[in-house]
Amino acid sequence: MNIAIVGATGYGGVELLRLLNQHYKVENITLYSSSQEGTAMHELYPHLASFPTYQLEAVTPEKMGEAHDVIFLSTPPGVSAELTVKLLNKRAKVIDLSGDLRLENQSVYETWYKRTAAPDALRQQAVYGLTEWNALSIQSANVVANPGCYPTASLLGLLPLANEGILDGASVIIDAKTGTTGAGRSPSAVTHFSETNENLKAYGVNTHKHLPEMEEHLHKLGGADQKLTFTPHLAPMARGIMATMYVQPSQELNRKDIDELYQAAYQNEPFVHVHQDGRVPSTKETYASNMCMIGTALDERTGRLTVVSVIDNLVKGAAGQAIQNMNVMFGFSQNTGIQQAPVFP
Amino acid sequence: MNIAIVGATGYGGVELLRLLNQHYKVENITLYSSSQEGTAMHELYPHLASFPTYQLEAVTPEKMGEAHDVIFLSTPPGVSAELTVKLLNKRAKVIDLSGDLRLENQSVYETWYKRTAAPDALRQQAVYGLTEWNALSIQSANVVANPGCYPTASLLGLLPLANEGILDGASVIIDAKTGTTGAGRSPSAVTHFSETNENLKAYGVNTHKHLPEMEEHLHKLGGADQKLTFTPHLAPMARGIMATMYVQPSQELNRKDIDELYQAAYQNEPFVHVHQDGRVPSTKETYASNMCMIGTALDERTGRLTVVSVIDNLVKGAAGQAIQNMNVMFGFSQNTGIQQAPVFP
Amino acid sequence: MNIAIVGATGYGGVELLRLLNQHYKVENITLYSSSQEGTAMHELYPHLASFPTYQLEAVTPEKMGEAHDVIFLSTPPGVSAELTVKLLNKRAKVIDLSGDLRLENQSVYETWYKRTAAPDALRQQAVYGLTEWNALSIQSANVVANPGCYPTASLLGLLPLANEGILDGASVIIDAKTGTTGAGRSPSAVTHFSETNENLKAYGVNTHKHLPEMEEHLHKLGGADQKLTFTPHLAPMARGIMATMYVQPSQELNRKDIDELYQAAYQNEPFVHVHQDGRVPSTKETYASNMCMIGTALDERTGRLTVVSVIDNLVKGAAGQAIQNMNVMFGFSQNTGIQQAPVFP
Amino acid sequence: MNIAIVGATGYGGVELLRLLNQHYKVENITLYSSSQEGTAMHELYPHLASFPTYQLEAVTPEKMGEAHDVIFLSTPPGVSAELTVKLLNKRAKVIDLSGDLRLENQSVYETWYKRTAAPDALRQQAVYGLTEWNALSIQSANVVANPGCYPTASLLGLLPLANEGILDGASVIIDAKTGTTGAGRSPSAVTHFSETNENLKAYGVNTHKHLPEMEEHLHKLGGADQKLTFTPHLAPMARGIMATMYVQPSQELNRKDIDELYQAAYQNEPFVHVHQDGRVPSTKETYASNMCMIGTALDERTGRLTVVSVIDNLVKGAAGQAIQNMNVMFGFSQNTGIQQAPVFP
Repeated sequence: MNIAIVGATGYGGVELLRLLNQHYKVENITLYSSSQEGTAMHELYPHLASFPTYQLEAVTPEKMGEAHDVIFLSTPPGVSAELTVKLLNKRAKVIDLSGDLRLENQSVYETWYKRTAAPDALRQQAVYGLTEWNALSIQSANVVANPGCYPTASLLGLLPLANEGILDGASVIIDAKTGTTGAGRSPSAVTHFSETNENLKAYGVNTHKHLPEMEEHLHKLGGADQKLTFTPHLAPMARGIMATMYVQPSQELNRKDIDELYQAAYQNEPFVHVHQDGRVPSTKETYASNMCMIGTALDERTGRLTVVSVIDNLVKGAAGQAIQNMNVMFGFSQNTGIQQAPVFP
Repeated sequence: MNIAIVGATGYGGVELLRLLNQHYKVENITLYSSSQEGTAMHELYPHLASFPTYQLEAVTPEKMGEAHDVIFLSTPPGVSAELTVKLLNKRAKVIDLSGDLRLENQSVYETWYKRTAAPDALRQQAVYGLTEWNALSIQSANVVANPGCYPTASLLGLLPLANEGILDGASVIIDAKTGTTGAGRSPSAVTHFSETNENLKAYGVNTHKHLPEMEEHLHKLGGADQKLTFTPHLAPMARGIMATMYVQPSQELNRKDIDELYQAAYQNEPFVHVHQDGRVPSTKETYASNMCMIGTALDERTGRLTVVSVIDNLVKGAAGQAIQNMNVMFGFSQNTGIQQAPVFP
Repeated sequence: MNIAIVGATGYGGVELLRLLNQHYKVENITLYSSSQEGTAMHELYPHLASFPTYQLEAVTPEKMGEAHDVIFLSTPPGVSAELTVKLLNKRAKVIDLSGDLRLENQSVYETWYKRTAAPDALRQQAVYGLTEWNALSIQSANVVANPGCYPTASLLGLLPLANEGILDGASVIIDAKTGTTGAGRSPSAVTHFSETNENLKAYGVNTHKHLPEMEEHLHKLGGADQKLTFTPHLAPMARGIMATMYVQPSQELNRKDIDELYQAAYQNEPFVHVHQDGRVPSTKETYASNMCMIGTALDERTGRLTVVSVIDNLVKGAAGQAIQNMNVMFGFSQNTGIQQAPVFP
Repeated sequence: MNIAIVGATGYGGVELLRLLNQHYKVENITLYSSSQEGTAMHELYPHLASFPTYQLEAVTPEKMGEAHDVIFLSTPPGVSAELTVKLLNKRAKVIDLSGDLRLENQSVYETWYKRTAAPDALRQQAVYGLTEWNALSIQSANVVANPGCYPTASLLGLLPLANEGILDGASVIIDAKTGTTGAGRSPSAVTHFSETNENLKAYGVNTHKHLPEMEEHLHKLGGADQKLTFTPHLAPMARGIMATMYVQPSQELNRKDIDELYQAAYQNEPFVHVHQDGRVPSTKETYASNMCMIGTALDERTGRLTVVSVIDNLVKGAAGQAIQNMNVMFGFSQNTGIQQAPVFP
């Protein structure tokens, strides 16, 4: 496999590089950057100083499309839409880690992203890359829209319920917490250590771009028609996402049914584990790994179900799932190159 | 004022000491400990080495009751119930920071605390010390049950709604996050740095002892009859509590009404500030101070209201509010000794 | 006292505000900013939302010099030199928290700061504000150069030795560690949470601007002529400085002499505490307080003495010491307004 | 390869498990524990829940010695000495991660460890496993004493100098900083999150057990006869060690010579990288990897050389180096199974 990473200087790019270096099918990796071409990657990331030198190359869509088997786009909003158009019908398959191609409806995209949407045809061609729930479509896709970090954690927790009709008429609230790497590498007031350590912040209450993504794919992959309430929080840690989700179902549930439906959903999936007996996971159980861990608690007093789902936002929430999708697209075993155990502690 | 702190070696005790040393009405502070009598406080807490030496004294209820104007009990479950009985009808007023006296109903207490309740008469005599909502009763109280940290943050956020009837028939969910000091000074796996840093944990889902406390006082102080869903989380920070609360009201709300009702509730309160314009607070805005900061966001798509309330768990959630209650009980201005600005950053 | 803080929007400024609000001699505080005039302070710092509103005012040296008793300059390099010239011979005394006036020798300043020095007369007039060692000069000063954070911790640890001649012919190495607030409020790669948490960095090895400041005042206040080796490190915490100092004396020392000389130096100082028995302090023992804590360990195998000195960089290392100097300049008790115990934990 | 890990429930054990699972020569891993036999590993470490179940087995030296090719001992002080005696002259080679076998001299051991030393014959047979400097002996060893975390970082930084005679007559000071995982999994006051976060502590000044280990092997592997000064510090992070070392050489050095001697020492070593141009490394450059990164700064004013050396204490400082030694002992390429890039950020 001959691989390209575009936008390699961001956290998504450097995480792709870390993981792809462990993938035995990968022969060649080329890094592209529109702002840092000519620079050696280890000048930006000294932790790579002892690894083979990667020189950042200029982005040349025509050439890239023929030179590579897969192109990962880890680019800012708007860029991947533009690039992907030029990459279609070439040798390379495209896996887009940005949000450009995740929403089908143009006006929904433009309302939430506050920018012009990618062309309709492109957005409609892109297959949503939530691997566990869309593998069949991913298998034959040329363009994959890799899910956002919050949607990955949330949808993996909710879809087993949606598919059993439990979310019909239910109320669903998502209280999510992320580490700071989700905000990228550019320094900003929000991720300034002095004000982030010993601090917990809520932000983007009901206005975060991942909200319509969750609604759309909860509908498409789970048949649920939900208006979600969604509060993201920034926790004083670098990695990890936890989605704590509150479901008030219209019908009564019991513990055993819930355990069984989650088991049924994920027992053959290498990257989703469901804790039993009401145990709920903590984010560090997935650190630096592609795992999603889920636990549920049923409250008999209120009939409400609490679902806790955790991932590493840079792995299962970005680079790891992108590679998982590559594996599916090329017929490799899903866990090739990304089966490493979490780093603990 | 002649003050006693019982259980002075815990975090609640040491925080009382820090704050009372700033209180100009306080002439004398005596520290008591049943396990460390004879030890000098600064041997346990070297940061006090340059301050006047406090020798920990043995707990002698008879004598203490006459020697002090106020006795703060910062003791483990069960201890303060036993002590308070012996302190009644003496000179000293009692402010209990433990959970022993916060619940009126014996069986509720015993179900959630899994231990024998304090005598009925004692629990009924104790006045719940949520200062902003119960000052009149606190004024004449001899025994105050100082609220828990989660209930303080949550009730201050919900009571303005409850008192307007907005919680009637509503569904209320509390997703709360705490720093580690809430777990006290005894080392344990749950607060072991190696596994707590870069980690976020949910725990005690719907089983935390503060849940019935919130339900009882939401009813008593706000007239709301609610079965709450409550998920506490442990965040990788030492201080701070955030309660993110989700209210699905039975009637329609509008932004202006909400702003007005919170303003009306708190405009004269020195220790509660309500952010306007949908801005929500972060925990560090209250660090080491007695402030509670509240913000709300109304989601027009779902009709749900999100309320974010933050405090420092050791100050407004424990020692600070206890002193605020002392001020009320003795007719001092509420903010005497506890008006310091938050430490930021 | 009528006070001005210039450059009030930085961490030094906001810390001055926090502490001066506790100072009973202070009647009035005016905040000045050259970049944010007209803005209310709490818009930049929401933790101040419940405190009296401070509007940032434009910097007008002529007027300010007459309007205030003290002007604290918490301004970027170069600014205070320029401002102070205009403030001389007015009503106001000036306390400069920047590095502009700390070095007497012009060429030393220009070599290390890589910018033009303040006028000679001004630099020579400025009194170095290491309170414990220079109180007599500070008492009659009109302009005080408030020490840097690293020099404060280091000099307080070394001067008792210097004054006994123990540093004569000795080798002295300073390995210092700071929290991130020392780097100020502007976001940068170096203080980006994602790369700062779980990380420890050395920086500016032997090139930090505080090095010549330490050498100059070790000489002036302690008579020692030393070429220091100095490595600052950035630790993953917001506040705190530890200087671990290694002294290889030319003569033999003994434990008792060392204890006695430190005791003699600091027994009457309210803000320096010396641990006995070889115990060394940790930074949190001084958190949010004006204390400096010192401990020493004598290694009989090598004859070397290790001195550990800790402070809160924003308090004793900046705003707190500035107020301590104000107290000396105006004849107040040194600890007025800054006697608060550390926040622990 | 058939592998045993004894003491598998500690951090060293679980890190061995993580890394060995990536090693393609490893067919079988058995975990032993004397305190938790019968327990499934994922009950203690839920992050392993989705990986193959490892049942902890009782320690049976006779059987183990024949059943395995390598036995890693990740056991408390005293245990491995006792166990290793029973494992000699069996099929298995032993790699001991404890400190029992690292010191040759009995009285030195007993002075610093304050316990009875292992039998002389055993300690003398054990080969010190600092791979880069002792590979030839390790190749034929049956028992390897895996180095401590501080000695690994320090010796890798100092040995290139020692071997060129630069430490002869020099003064050497080691100021080292570690993350909390070095203190193991048992909760204690020292690693209690509430008091460890936002804190930096010095401890064990000149009394740490790793001090004689550094002196002994600086002598054996580098010919230097040094009495070291050594201050370990605990930094608020889970992983990482930085040794900042100060060398005052008796002769004059120049920048070019230093660069060349470090390059010469490590250019063929896969796990040591030397930064050029005075750049010094930060701990996160090695996070979760087996790398050691070194940088040096020469101070022309004083003639002193500052050497900064960083590792991940659980990998190159424990489990990773142990596997590197296994690779050498069995003739595999040194980086088999441990070539992963650091996790960053």
